Amino acid sequence: MKNFSDNRYRAVVRVPGTSANCGPGFDCLGVAATIYNYLDLTLLKSNRIVVESSGDGADKIPRGKRNLTWQAVKKLLDVTGHADEFRGAIIRTKNTVPVSRGLGSSSAAIVAGLVAANEILGSPLNRNDLLTLATDIEGHPDNVAPALFGGFTVSVMDAGKVQTFSFMPRIKLKLIVSVPEFELSTRLARKVLPKNVSMRDAVFNVSRASMLIAALVEGREDLLPIAFGDALHQPYRKKLVPGMTQVFDAAVDAGALGAAISGAGSCLIAFTTAKSGLEEKISAAMVDAFQAHGVRSKALILNVDKRGAEILNA
Amino acid sequence: MKNFSDNRYRAVVRVPGTSANCGPGFDCLGVAATIYNYLDLTLLKSNRIVVESSGDGADKIPRGKRNLTWQAVKKLLDVTGHADEFRGAIIRTKNTVPVSRGLGSSSAAIVAGLVAANEILGSPLNRNDLLTLATDIEGHPDNVAPALFGGFTVSVMDAGKVQTFSFMPRIKLKLIVSVPEFELSTRLARKVLPKNVSMRDAVFNVSRASMLIAALVEGREDLLPIAFGDALHQPYRKKLVPGMTQVFDAAVDAGALGAAISGAGSCLIAFTTAKSGLEEKISAAMVDAFQAHGVRSKALILNVDKRGAEILNA
Repeated sequence: MKNFSDNRYRAVVRVPGTSANCGPGFDCLGVAATIYNYLDLTLLKSNRIVVESSGDGADKIPRGKRNLTWQAVKKLLDVTGHADEFRGAIIRTKNTVPVSRGLGSSSAAIVAGLVAANEILGSPLNRNDLLTLATDIEGHPDNVAPALFGGFTVSVMDAGKVQTFSFMPRIKLKLIVSVPEFELSTRLARKVLPKNVSMRDAVFNVSRASMLIAALVEGREDLLPIAFGDALHQPYRKKLVPGMTQVFDAAVDAGALGAAISGAGSCLIAFTTAKSGLEEKISAAMVDAFQAHGVRSKALILNVDKRGAEILNA
Repeated sequence: MKNFSDNRYRAVVRVPGTSANCGPGFDCLGVAATIYNYLDLTLLKSNRIVVESSGDGADKIPRGKRNLTWQAVKKLLDVTGHADEFRGAIIRTKNTVPVSRGLGSSSAAIVAGLVAANEILGSPLNRNDLLTLATDIEGHPDNVAPALFGGFTVSVMDAGKVQTFSFMPRIKLKLIVSVPEFELSTRLARKVLPKNVSMRDAVFNVSRASMLIAALVEGREDLLPIAFGDALHQPYRKKLVPGMTQVFDAAVDAGALGAAISGAGSCLIAFTTAKSGLEEKISAAMVDAFQAHGVRSKALILNVDKRGAEILNA
């Protein structure tokens, strides 16, 4: 991203990939990871939309008005009353977040567009405003919130408004992400979920999500192993991810505190402490367990990103 | 409780009343309040069971083997192998926690028996052991956990074992409890609940319980108003508590951060900060709103108890 000339109507931003749900926190909990997409945005007075992509999934990114970053930029221009002034954009992206794997690549594209355009316009909106816009576009806050704020985020939707609390856990965590070679569409992963669940399963998740937040905020590592359980979404999604249960078991057997589907999949994510030193072992165990089910995967060992979306040319 | 002679086989304990659920934390969240039941327990070698009660609900407390405190004492004697040594007890109680109103009077009776008997026997069990026993007897941990540990508690049931995290919120809270004159049986309040709920309602509570814990632990008063909502139990129980919704609204209109049914009712509880100075106003508004529905009630203004069950003769 170097050697671009500076420009009044230009901003460069970096946005983290994110993992939603983290087990029990279905549709409300998320975490930002130290894997990033970069956007170099220039707003144009003309109505040209130029999209140049490199990195993960570059060949699949829509080039015209269907480009997600453009849609976010356009929304921000509309909301802030600049849609007549700027009618196009040059969108240059360099992506390292795997696409359609449940690591928030679409949320990163949206957040990048909003944050960059807002920066160019002199920050007419604050981060909470941007969260509302991003949630509008994405449909749910669980990835856009950590992409914007960093850390772990708890998001609540109330009458169409979203409120988010973000925090860095008092435990230094390692996030071990297994990225299988197959993609999983969020729409399909939603479709397998039931409309109704048992009260028992609801309470299962309410109690574990509460425990997870408490344990992370207060640094109670001893309480984490019980806190990552889920009864609301993963039992239904496991048929979409061959070997899911076995990969979870392999991670925990190798010393992980817990494991979960990352967002709607296909990635699986395991959690351990930095001081355990077990991340390589856990990562290898997950790759092997996937392989035993005929799934090739690569592993990422990441930290929790604490900054969220960042302007790089400020 | 004065002027009792000291004795090797005797302990005096104080146990707080408790409010379970706190809105979204159905069957897992609870809080201890500064209202107490006292137990003066003497273990007997003979198989006499003497029960002397004073205070709230004294005339209703079973005198013989069905006495809940005795059942707890007996369980502890069994588990620790002292059932042959001690076969009876003198149970003297002085209660200020209203009975059958959702303030944890039965949990207090159980916890008092366990803690006192354990103390007399030289503390063979730790508090986590006592929590497991108390949960066994009570059937769920949401009142016994705060009665034992004090503060707010998050409890998770896992394979018959209970794990609890207890904490004092970083916000100094006032608990305003409306005690209506009618009782409500927990069995009836459970019976009106559906076996299944919508995924949407499950997520509603998962997100708010998570937010509530985060806001309390981190002292984020601004996030509390969104955090007390519930879709899992209160909508079904409101028909059992005439005026429930209106009392909630009255409390919030008078400045409360939120309101909830206390446990399975009949008490309603509202939350405000100590610094708001609004507790009297909220309390009056709740009594008036109940009165408008033909329900006479009294109000208690309490703090969060931070100590849980305490030995007084140590």
